[in-house]
Amino acid sequence: MLRSQIRTPALLVDMDVMERNLSAMAAFFAEGSARLRPHYKNHKCVALARRQLAAGAIGITCATLGEAEALASSGIQGILLANEIADPVQIERFVALARLTDIMVGVDNEAAVAALSAASARAHVQLSVVVDVDTGMGRCGIGPGQPALALAQLAVARGLRLRGLIGYEGHCVRLPPGPGKVQAAQTAMEKLVSSANLLRSHGLPVEIVSAGGTGTYSISGRVPGVTEIQGGSYLLMDTDYQTVCTDFGLALSVLGTVISRTGNERLILNIGLKEISGERGLPSLKNTPGARLRKLNAEHAVVDILDPNLSLQVGDAVELWAHYSDATVNLHRQMFGMRGECVEETFFLES
Amino acid sequence: MLRSQIRTPALLVDMDVMERNLSAMAAFFAEGSARLRPHYKNHKCVALARRQLAAGAIGITCATLGEAEALASSGIQGILLANEIADPVQIERFVALARLTDIMVGVDNEAAVAALSAASARAHVQLSVVVDVDTGMGRCGIGPGQPALALAQLAVARGLRLRGLIGYEGHCVRLPPGPGKVQAAQTAMEKLVSSANLLRSHGLPVEIVSAGGTGTYSISGRVPGVTEIQGGSYLLMDTDYQTVCTDFGLALSVLGTVISRTGNERLILNIGLKEISGERGLPSLKNTPGARLRKLNAEHAVVDILDPNLSLQVGDAVELWAHYSDATVNLHRQMFGMRGECVEETFFLES
Repeated sequence: MLRSQIRTPALLVDMDVMERNLSAMAAFFAEGSARLRPHYKNHKCVALARRQLAAGAIGITCATLGEAEALASSGIQGILLANEIADPVQIERFVALARLTDIMVGVDNEAAVAALSAASARAHVQLSVVVDVDTGMGRCGIGPGQPALALAQLAVARGLRLRGLIGYEGHCVRLPPGPGKVQAAQTAMEKLVSSANLLRSHGLPVEIVSAGGTGTYSISGRVPGVTEIQGGSYLLMDTDYQTVCTDFGLALSVLGTVISRTGNERLILNIGLKEISGERGLPSLKNTPGARLRKLNAEHAVVDILDPNLSLQVGDAVELWAHYSDATVNLHRQMFGMRGECVEETFFLES
Repeated sequence: MLRSQIRTPALLVDMDVMERNLSAMAAFFAEGSARLRPHYKNHKCVALARRQLAAGAIGITCATLGEAEALASSGIQGILLANEIADPVQIERFVALARLTDIMVGVDNEAAVAALSAASARAHVQLSVVVDVDTGMGRCGIGPGQPALALAQLAVARGLRLRGLIGYEGHCVRLPPGPGKVQAAQTAMEKLVSSANLLRSHGLPVEIVSAGGTGTYSISGRVPGVTEIQGGSYLLMDTDYQTVCTDFGLALSVLGTVISRTGNERLILNIGLKEISGERGLPSLKNTPGARLRKLNAEHAVVDILDPNLSLQVGDAVELWAHYSDATVNLHRQMFGMRGECVEETFFLES
């Protein structure tokens, strides 16, 4: 199948670039003591998760129960659900997962520990948890140090299996590179690692100290005491992340068609915010000098023609680079793996 | 099934409110000469389209070939694809649709007319078109008057069946109510209706003069010469549209769970921008005084606690009103129809 035969709009991944990104990240984690448990939330594709495991990843991180279910039902082990769960339906789904696979979930409050503990006793299944520590992001997570220790002790006392700590430094990942970013990420990791040491000093098992994203992997992944990194966006990348991380190439785009041209003023593409995310800013045109994306409507992209000699006409193909890969992949159910002009593989996006 | 048994996050529709919206719009179009061909793009649900038809709609408008395919394969007739198509794959999909159902598509350029004409001759299927007129929005559409006439004449000369004109006044629908909005919409409709009259004066058949959205239906739907309106958002509504149109109630929300609470500072919900759109602004909490949504991350909503007596705790259910219904529905594959606390029906979102 050729690019020209694809129904537009369609999500594309450049296989060459994706494979280079995979190798570059694997090479980083082949050295040092930290390992990679890449985040599934970004690509939501079991076939890509398998490639990450084949390249050395020690398991897969995810953000939702639905993602964990997709991974577990594909036989994937070593799942870190790096998020909180709370209500009875969520707890029961997690119990079902724990019967299927090796999975752990974050906890940051006593109510969740109590609910997981009660469910574990009812179901006769030991449940694994990691204490989620707020390292400065101010979202989920319990305070580092004594509060984290107290919650870890409660979890163990209630019969849960404590695996360690997680602490996503989300306030650092999109800082521009430089000493300020290094300092911010190291400060966050200090809170996490010192909490881990405090737990250990109280006799608690801390196998896992997990943090990091694509924007901080090279800093947090070299902090002594951090055992693993959760980065996910590195594989497909996007133009937003590339402003702060140039280690990886852009692999993700949306293919569309010019459906209208008004003189030398504007083009309209059949790609809208239902196919490519504008949640953090506008995407940009791939390999199309002389034109610039002005705005995204629900089903249309409005492109200003800057160069009157622009050759694009109605019916021609155009690609937009994803600006926010997470939210763009989330809009699609399949992704075409392109080797040049050919579709080499169709990736199903499972959750 | 009860609300408390639903897996969160989940898309909900309040059946009572939705039915009131359906009736209110039907009552408007029971008078006057214009009819309603509601837009499927908003809810993407064939079961809801059937209710709109049962309430008097004369057919269904849609924005993409995928939507048209979902409608046609469900046996729905009278489909207006109010958009342009251009490349060979799109043209072939449209030919296949024309074999299945009564469908027409917008054209705004000679290349598309030529491509449709050639495909029609090859396939021995007559294809129906409407000329898309730019009534001032500046997106798709050919200029009103002489350019629209010339394109219509070309379509007929090339063997296409001309059904009429479409002209979405998208630059008016979100203006605040008042004389300025009335003037703007009427000015746009004047361009469309005068174009229709010009075509008729040249002997061309103009059965359909279609325009309008939820934000302008009551203005454009009473302009003499406008035969039908395309509004779609009226059925489910959202907090953005409600700032300019108070004729309909909010029916669409996303149900989530409080997964973390940090003292009297903040709550975290398991609803992110992957489940509710923030593309045009932030959603808001339903029936939750004392708290305010501060931001949406990919999988989390961060809620500021304004009232220290707020009773919401980890594990409790919370709903967010959709701020942008089109883009929110697009994130889901099913929607729970709620009658009070009970799930009365599960709606599948088919495209």
